[in-house]
Amino acid sequence: MTTCVCPGSFDPLTLGHLDVIERCAALFEDVVVTVLHNPDKQGTFGADERVDLIERSVAHLDNVRAAAYANTLLVDVCRELGAPLVVKGLRGETDFSYETPMATMNRALSGLETVFIPGNPGMDHLSSSLIKQVAGLGGDVTGMVPEPVIGPLLERVGASR
Amino acid sequence: MTTCVCPGSFDPLTLGHLDVIERCAALFEDVVVTVLHNPDKQGTFGADERVDLIERSVAHLDNVRAAAYANTLLVDVCRELGAPLVVKGLRGETDFSYETPMATMNRALSGLETVFIPGNPGMDHLSSSLIKQVAGLGGDVTGMVPEPVIGPLLERVGASR
Amino acid sequence: MTTCVCPGSFDPLTLGHLDVIERCAALFEDVVVTVLHNPDKQGTFGADERVDLIERSVAHLDNVRAAAYANTLLVDVCRELGAPLVVKGLRGETDFSYETPMATMNRALSGLETVFIPGNPGMDHLSSSLIKQVAGLGGDVTGMVPEPVIGPLLERVGASR
Amino acid sequence: MTTCVCPGSFDPLTLGHLDVIERCAALFEDVVVTVLHNPDKQGTFGADERVDLIERSVAHLDNVRAAAYANTLLVDVCRELGAPLVVKGLRGETDFSYETPMATMNRALSGLETVFIPGNPGMDHLSSSLIKQVAGLGGDVTGMVPEPVIGPLLERVGASR
Amino acid sequence: MTTCVCPGSFDPLTLGHLDVIERCAALFEDVVVTVLHNPDKQGTFGADERVDLIERSVAHLDNVRAAAYANTLLVDVCRELGAPLVVKGLRGETDFSYETPMATMNRALSGLETVFIPGNPGMDHLSSSLIKQVAGLGGDVTGMVPEPVIGPLLERVGASR
Amino acid sequence: MTTCVCPGSFDPLTLGHLDVIERCAALFEDVVVTVLHNPDKQGTFGADERVDLIERSVAHLDNVRAAAYANTLLVDVCRELGAPLVVKGLRGETDFSYETPMATMNRALSGLETVFIPGNPGMDHLSSSLIKQVAGLGGDVTGMVPEPVIGPLLERVGASR
Repeated sequence: MTTCVCPGSFDPLTLGHLDVIERCAALFEDVVVTVLHNPDKQGTFGADERVDLIERSVAHLDNVRAAAYANTLLVDVCRELGAPLVVKGLRGETDFSYETPMATMNRALSGLETVFIPGNPGMDHLSSSLIKQVAGLGGDVTGMVPEPVIGPLLERVGASR
Repeated sequence: MTTCVCPGSFDPLTLGHLDVIERCAALFEDVVVTVLHNPDKQGTFGADERVDLIERSVAHLDNVRAAAYANTLLVDVCRELGAPLVVKGLRGETDFSYETPMATMNRALSGLETVFIPGNPGMDHLSSSLIKQVAGLGGDVTGMVPEPVIGPLLERVGASR
Repeated sequence: MTTCVCPGSFDPLTLGHLDVIERCAALFEDVVVTVLHNPDKQGTFGADERVDLIERSVAHLDNVRAAAYANTLLVDVCRELGAPLVVKGLRGETDFSYETPMATMNRALSGLETVFIPGNPGMDHLSSSLIKQVAGLGGDVTGMVPEPVIGPLLERVGASR
Repeated sequence: MTTCVCPGSFDPLTLGHLDVIERCAALFEDVVVTVLHNPDKQGTFGADERVDLIERSVAHLDNVRAAAYANTLLVDVCRELGAPLVVKGLRGETDFSYETPMATMNRALSGLETVFIPGNPGMDHLSSSLIKQVAGLGGDVTGMVPEPVIGPLLERVGASR
Repeated sequence: MTTCVCPGSFDPLTLGHLDVIERCAALFEDVVVTVLHNPDKQGTFGADERVDLIERSVAHLDNVRAAAYANTLLVDVCRELGAPLVVKGLRGETDFSYETPMATMNRALSGLETVFIPGNPGMDHLSSSLIKQVAGLGGDVTGMVPEPVIGPLLERVGASR
Repeated sequence: MTTCVCPGSFDPLTLGHLDVIERCAALFEDVVVTVLHNPDKQGTFGADERVDLIERSVAHLDNVRAAAYANTLLVDVCRELGAPLVVKGLRGETDFSYETPMATMNRALSGLETVFIPGNPGMDHLSSSLIKQVAGLGGDVTGMVPEPVIGPLLERVGASR
């Protein structure tokens, strides 16, 4: 059984992230969504909240689970999970240029492989930060984040109109 | 009459920005240069100063005006102005990659269209931040910002040599 | 009244092209889709056929017309049409890099301006050449070209399965 | 058992290609290297020769085989092989921009997924065409193609010095 | 004395090429502009004509000369000239992506180094092919090629208006 | 004698930086590695420490020296050193896009030229920030920084495992 890891900050999960996770779940037997975080840096959501929102959003996928790792190298996470493979969604060339050095670094550190899956083109604009900015200025984020994320997101950053 | 909006932070206006505004003024009947800002984040110039510097720099253009908007979505600014169209100058592929998700987001939010106009190649290096850095280290910024901006810029960030 | 020109080879028109044309029709009063061609080089469709397929596909748009120009500079086409503006759809950074030198050249030749409109992300893979390749190998091109193009395309390049 | 397909023209196989194939062989249970070709267009090597050179170069990999397909859509090749997944090596952003529309097209045609694996950075310059050009001008191609390819390559395109 | 080589097809020399050559002439003691060509492929100008147009255009530069090489690897040209260094002008990211594999290949073949010099931004649109296209359709190429090139260019590809 | 300047923050020097410096030392008679810094912003290493680590790492190169400059324009550094030329290593297109506006700015300010040298592909993932992140999470940075840097780096940011 091949375990694949989908790493990210997921602060919070977007529909673009979920699309990548669903496609991984169809291709690989076991998928672990890992929230990598640094407890000294405060995010919009805490690591446990992010994991909880992921778990509620992937409840329909039997072979997907989520976990948070504080201050841990991705290669160590994957070693612990027995995962030979990382899958990252790409939202265009900028993502590709940003991700490639980290992928090379991980191969150099432990032989860990990274493969890139092109994002769903209609979701390429869905970054967590842009969505939080829209929500913070009162925009409607329906269709941008999974249903379980909408409430907590508006509560945390949403503007009253 | 088609109103087009040229949004930005304009902290401060550069000759590259002005070139884009002048070309918009020749193509569209009504041009609104909008300073989008977050009052909680301090810029080099205040929003009102930025608008003032723009207005003094576009005094020769009858169909151009400037306005500041605090904590407002660009789609809401355009709805208020009755503008169906945003024009952004591009200074190369990096700008393109940065602007495209926001353009897609704005179409998703309200149908607002964004078109990109390639910057004057001889002005592609003129970003507000690089110019402020040059001025701050005592470099000569003549030919980088409009004449009304030179004095205030040197006063604010300029080094004495 | 501002006339805008949408130039291309349109060999043949795709749904991505049509999306750009429809958005131009909403933004500008008068839109001319121009087929620029070199009669010495044979395309899949003749210039007149391409214009015919465009016209049948834009029949619902009152302010759009199509025309073919053989061996003519785009700046001369626009001068003849009284159009100050070219609009090109972009399907990613590669298109941007390819189009920018031509846009700069046209400004240098006559002051003609080019603005870029980002393609509908869900249609970024729809190039005429890739669609012809798919059709030629027996793939289903429904949802890739406008309805009036499907029949002629299959007749010209389609494989029998 | 997941079958993955590594498609290409492989005219001829390079050490960059072989590196990607070896990494796929470590990640997936079954790997099929497919030579997609058009019999009407003459390559440097015939399709059968290309397959033979691949097979001799992957003899050490138990779960890898090679096959040629004339005038066939990649989605049809994968359907026939029962492969839900294509893996393509990427040699930089240009490859990414070139491959992404084809990946999107294949998802649209049949749900076939494509994942990208970054090439070994030290092999990013190894394209078949550049290597053939070097060999044709008398350059030493040792370390650029697998051992079984060297002789046939020099025989076909090599210059006498 | 360091000899640097500026290679290209120069079919014909543009003002963008000349700008790069002039800047090399200010930085390096000895500059050789090399026309690399394949006698089996016909260009717009013959190799000797291209060298002649270069020589007439660099007559004001004492440390610059031009030469043609048929079917020769750039590394062999540089070895013959005793040049440790190639300088290539870049007109944007696309040029960078195209040139980098060749630079890496040349280092691999002989240790030859390539450095890139960014083109004059106001000349980034000046490719030989685009200029020939403009001239062929009757456009004015003044300010695009050096003065000695204008006449021969119009004679060869120019349209009568 | 041509002096070339290799500027950067070098916080700290990586093996990728060292590779570029060694190649410059083979091409130019005199190489000055300059640490440009702002004393108000704290780095991981102080400017003097960075210079010291560079000097210990380039001890085998007779024509290379290092120096720190606080709050100084690169064009002023080069004027003081009598250097007509800056050499920057590039680790891909993103670096190119980031560096080009600064190169153009420096030409505009004083005629200073910048040439880019492509990084050793096997070292393209070696950025100071990524290496510090790896060291901080307990990863092995052997083969990423020069030998004299390893101890101080682990002391400053290294995690105990």
